[in-house]
Amino acid sequence: MTTLYLDNNATTMVAPEVLEAMLPYLKDHYGNPSSMHSFGGHVARKIAAAREETANLIGADPEEIIFTSCGTESDNTAIRSALASMPDRRHIVTSRVEHPAVKVLCEHLSKEGCRITEIAVDGQGRLDMEQYEKSLSKDTAVVSLMWANNETGVIFPVKTAAQMARERGILFHTDAVQAAGKIPIDMKRTAIDMLSFSGHKLHAPKGIGVLYVRRGTKFSPFLIGGHQERGRRGGTESVAGIIALGKACSLAAANVNLENSAVKALRDRLEQTILQRISDTKINGNTKERLPNTTNISFEFVEGEGILLMMNEYGICASSGSACTSGSLQPSHVLRAMGVPFTMAHGSIRFSLSIYNTEAEIDFVIEKLVPIIDRLRRLSPYWDDVKQSCVLH
Amino acid sequence: MTTLYLDNNATTMVAPEVLEAMLPYLKDHYGNPSSMHSFGGHVARKIAAAREETANLIGADPEEIIFTSCGTESDNTAIRSALASMPDRRHIVTSRVEHPAVKVLCEHLSKEGCRITEIAVDGQGRLDMEQYEKSLSKDTAVVSLMWANNETGVIFPVKTAAQMARERGILFHTDAVQAAGKIPIDMKRTAIDMLSFSGHKLHAPKGIGVLYVRRGTKFSPFLIGGHQERGRRGGTESVAGIIALGKACSLAAANVNLENSAVKALRDRLEQTILQRISDTKINGNTKERLPNTTNISFEFVEGEGILLMMNEYGICASSGSACTSGSLQPSHVLRAMGVPFTMAHGSIRFSLSIYNTEAEIDFVIEKLVPIIDRLRRLSPYWDDVKQSCVLH
Repeated sequence: MTTLYLDNNATTMVAPEVLEAMLPYLKDHYGNPSSMHSFGGHVARKIAAAREETANLIGADPEEIIFTSCGTESDNTAIRSALASMPDRRHIVTSRVEHPAVKVLCEHLSKEGCRITEIAVDGQGRLDMEQYEKSLSKDTAVVSLMWANNETGVIFPVKTAAQMARERGILFHTDAVQAAGKIPIDMKRTAIDMLSFSGHKLHAPKGIGVLYVRRGTKFSPFLIGGHQERGRRGGTESVAGIIALGKACSLAAANVNLENSAVKALRDRLEQTILQRISDTKINGNTKERLPNTTNISFEFVEGEGILLMMNEYGICASSGSACTSGSLQPSHVLRAMGVPFTMAHGSIRFSLSIYNTEAEIDFVIEKLVPIIDRLRRLSPYWDDVKQSCVLH
Repeated sequence: MTTLYLDNNATTMVAPEVLEAMLPYLKDHYGNPSSMHSFGGHVARKIAAAREETANLIGADPEEIIFTSCGTESDNTAIRSALASMPDRRHIVTSRVEHPAVKVLCEHLSKEGCRITEIAVDGQGRLDMEQYEKSLSKDTAVVSLMWANNETGVIFPVKTAAQMARERGILFHTDAVQAAGKIPIDMKRTAIDMLSFSGHKLHAPKGIGVLYVRRGTKFSPFLIGGHQERGRRGGTESVAGIIALGKACSLAAANVNLENSAVKALRDRLEQTILQRISDTKINGNTKERLPNTTNISFEFVEGEGILLMMNEYGICASSGSACTSGSLQPSHVLRAMGVPFTMAHGSIRFSLSIYNTEAEIDFVIEKLVPIIDRLRRLSPYWDDVKQSCVLH
């Protein structure tokens, strides 16, 4: 059975060009870039080139790029570095809808004596900017706000928020794991001090991440060891992963217009047709300031997991909540923060597209999804109640 | 020019079987193991199998294995976790010859208020067990001693040292990055609580590491985020890296006898012939308790870097000091700790072999090395002094 993959916010296919670029570094060019011989030196030069490609995607300078193992490591590094740089400040400002890499870390830091403010979002997932402004204090060491939400795709006004933090001498970090490659980013035009993103969300393999640290920002390493990454991250470089990431970033830079035209058109087609053809459905999250590839739809009176399982029978991959919290029976913390009613949150599905999806795939999903929802609703006790109440009153 | 690779303690070639095993996870099977669909589920099952293969190499249970991004992350995690588990103890015992992943971390922790004892080694790189025993105190939270030294191959008696720590209620961590796959390890027969190793030292790619944590050991995560690795290490799993590591571990388990017979024989041939054919040479480190693949040889009156550069002309890759500290003009901290005189330390070369090396390669190295040393010595001002002093007195 063919896989029809609409779960690109969880992870993406490795682009063929990326695999091709990295393969020589899994085969012949296996030298350690720190070695004295030219066999290692060749690898060091390729890493420098990949660093430049990576920097270019976000309008950064190569020396502002630190390669890490994943978005989580980048987030942990940024927040801990900020706390280490400002030892007399113990307040962190974040939001109620962050990824666990920030949210769970902040919960942990609160046990270590930090004070955490989680800024609320409204019913459309938009940040409460008034509460944000009020939360910034002389004790605030760092703000960490995601650029775009992984579950709804809602984009936060991080540039404005970063400017407000800078004016108050507060460091600003953004988790841009979902934004990088999907919307244009130019760090030269922002006041953001640190930015995280991850290779496997933009068609590089899993196991490689990036932390951007603006030149001049005080930095304290998280992984301490050898001199790699100019002493900012110990550990032998994940060579093939770095080469892959460089290539993926250069492809992403070339494709970002496609994301915002073709991919957006496919997403809109999927979303609009579902809203038209299936009753009692609702988009979660503001539809104006949103990633072009993501839609989060609640199907009332059914369980998201039931929908996923039945779509799975046709090879259709999507997600309920984020992959990083799946396995839990709790409805998504993002939808709860938005005040989405329990029954709607439980029936929510995230479809996240990529440049590799086609119109035929979208049409196939709709063709299958309509009878799936119909069948599940017929099985649902809640649906019965509604139908009966319609008849009786 | 063919590469003749004798720098396997820096990094290794990815085994063809390993590349073959991981490739499907860089191509078709790109699902996120945390996803609800069967596309992700397949990947999760393969990770479970790789965890079992990894555990088998060191006689551990699969649930005692945490996948990390590198040996440095494993070392950082182990030591920080031990400190978090014993908040009323602030003393760390380590040695003077550790890898920077432990040594530099400990130096950093000393600035954060920890007290560090670095146990000395003798002229043959052997741990001072008397000093070690005396150093263990009621304030000692953790001991971190490498199993085998990366520069000399000298093996520490970690089993005895771990037993002594356990008897005193002290956690014991070992950096086994150089030992794993080269000598038999059976964690069931040791009192070691935590053990680090790295994929790229045993023919898996760079960017994947392991931390073994004995069942029942109190553990505090280092990378905090999602539920991955049963909540012990956040971050999307480095899927292809993990699959590769599993395969590499199962190959290493099958080849450990070969390491201690064929590879050892090649190393001995190289070492003995050098000692016989080149005057004023000396093995650094105890030759009895030593890894089978490593020899560290001092060539008096010459610079190690000169030797490396001239060998490089023939495609021969070796190392002076460790790759993780190269670029520095300081002689190796390991050789300094052993009291190797400055001129001898500066002329030291590490050859580290693997199962892929051949007798013909070893003979080629010797054939080229003899005239290289001869030529360099003729250029050396120190060598002239010696010759003249021989003539004059």
